[in-house]
Amino acid sequence: MDALGYYNGKWGPLDEMTVPMNDRGCYFGDGVYDACIAANGVIFALDEHIDRFFNSAKLLEIKINLTKDEVKKTLNEMHSKMDKGEYLVYWQATRGTGRRNHVFPAGPSNLWITIKPNPIDDVYKKIKLITIEDTRFLHCNIKTLNLIPNVIASQRALEAGCREAVFHRGETVTECAHSNVHIIKNGRFITHPADNLILRGIARSHLLQACDRLNIPSDEREFTVSELFDADEVLVSSSSTFCISAEKVDGKSVGGKAPELLKRIMDEVMREFTEATGHTPAWSRA
Amino acid sequence: MDALGYYNGKWGPLDEMTVPMNDRGCYFGDGVYDACIAANGVIFALDEHIDRFFNSAKLLEIKINLTKDEVKKTLNEMHSKMDKGEYLVYWQATRGTGRRNHVFPAGPSNLWITIKPNPIDDVYKKIKLITIEDTRFLHCNIKTLNLIPNVIASQRALEAGCREAVFHRGETVTECAHSNVHIIKNGRFITHPADNLILRGIARSHLLQACDRLNIPSDEREFTVSELFDADEVLVSSSSTFCISAEKVDGKSVGGKAPELLKRIMDEVMREFTEATGHTPAWSRA
Repeated sequence: MDALGYYNGKWGPLDEMTVPMNDRGCYFGDGVYDACIAANGVIFALDEHIDRFFNSAKLLEIKINLTKDEVKKTLNEMHSKMDKGEYLVYWQATRGTGRRNHVFPAGPSNLWITIKPNPIDDVYKKIKLITIEDTRFLHCNIKTLNLIPNVIASQRALEAGCREAVFHRGETVTECAHSNVHIIKNGRFITHPADNLILRGIARSHLLQACDRLNIPSDEREFTVSELFDADEVLVSSSSTFCISAEKVDGKSVGGKAPELLKRIMDEVMREFTEATGHTPAWSRA
Repeated sequence: MDALGYYNGKWGPLDEMTVPMNDRGCYFGDGVYDACIAANGVIFALDEHIDRFFNSAKLLEIKINLTKDEVKKTLNEMHSKMDKGEYLVYWQATRGTGRRNHVFPAGPSNLWITIKPNPIDDVYKKIKLITIEDTRFLHCNIKTLNLIPNVIASQRALEAGCREAVFHRGETVTECAHSNVHIIKNGRFITHPADNLILRGIARSHLLQACDRLNIPSDEREFTVSELFDADEVLVSSSSTFCISAEKVDGKSVGGKAPELLKRIMDEVMREFTEATGHTPAWSRA
């Protein structure tokens, strides 16, 4: 099977799967999600993603009628139906099913899973970014299905020939449309604090841990758009792209001033992934 | 049929309808909607709702591959399958179908319709409200499927024994979780300007027009939480509830100081509905 879909116990080829029209995900986006990269039959950092998923659900008072172990077991079961390639294992819980009514329904939440091929891109290839005003809600710490501003920002990036869009609230850089963003300046790794304005990215946590292991000092503090343009390096991280660096923002050259430090961090991030999964991406084997 | 569901040409009993798991509404809430009250076989104010629906879609660059007349025709066709009762005719367009990817898909948008019984509540019965900080995104002028903050606020209202939640950004009252909110003060009708912080409610427009016809002066201007508590009357409007007034906000008594003016406005709003549909709600016939 090329890609798999699962819904409350039923599963099949993703592109043929259907769900009830009355699922609250369909008309309120009333749900939370999480996603992992998988390779060589191993779902990477699954425990951390499961913890975040249950935390997102808790923050929205979505009652998941399964334990963490049960969700993990189901994800592993579904993933075991695929070959050993590189996949994105995505899952979401919606608040239940019923005719449209804003207040919470009585019933249980619904578990959705999709697993699709996700070739890992070369992290050492530089990318381009745009900046865009962050007009999102104030609950960006919760990984919800309310993603229209992220969709629009991603489309704007694509249209500008860029890979990602960097959100900023006024002068303060927050995160990207589907990644976190960080800078290196004077030997320090700097990233927005994990408050309600950004998602506490698991790749971001792994980056901070990598810096710790490498004795690179890090600061969780706000930084500005000017600091982004003036940074020694600009980094973008997400679970599916690990850690990549940018060479342009809004068409202007950025970074490139601390290539050795950058490489040490990226090597360490990829080392951890390869150690955990026993998998080396194709571009890294040459 | 008690309630009807429609999806891209297929229709049936709402509670049995399914949709593709890959519809972008399911994982991004990537769509827009609108809804009308229908009674006596007539969908009320349909043209205005269709116009707003196409405008919401345009603002999000969702290309609806049907004309306004085609959407109206489909809504009327589906509604004609129901009896002559009081219904909510709801429809949404999602940005298309495909495996999850933030950027816009190539394909056409999807049209969803649901029609369900919606007994019209007595508008002359006073309701209770709570206030809640408005933490939503800055695109509240677009009627999108990204409604988690509205869901949470509605649940908070229910838990407090109230009908609706009044959002405020700091001191400024914006709107409610699924209604607009207005005040009467010193003979004037006051409502938040139709900017990006509120939905331009069609019931709100009808209220403003009713005030015009009754020679009641109106102001589209920001007002504060203090002004809400100090108002002569507090009104809440939506297409499904028309115009109702509040007697309590956060447990404190409000309004009740301009009952005759309030009744003139409400009578005029209901007169317009009855004239257009030939329908008088049961509670109004006694």
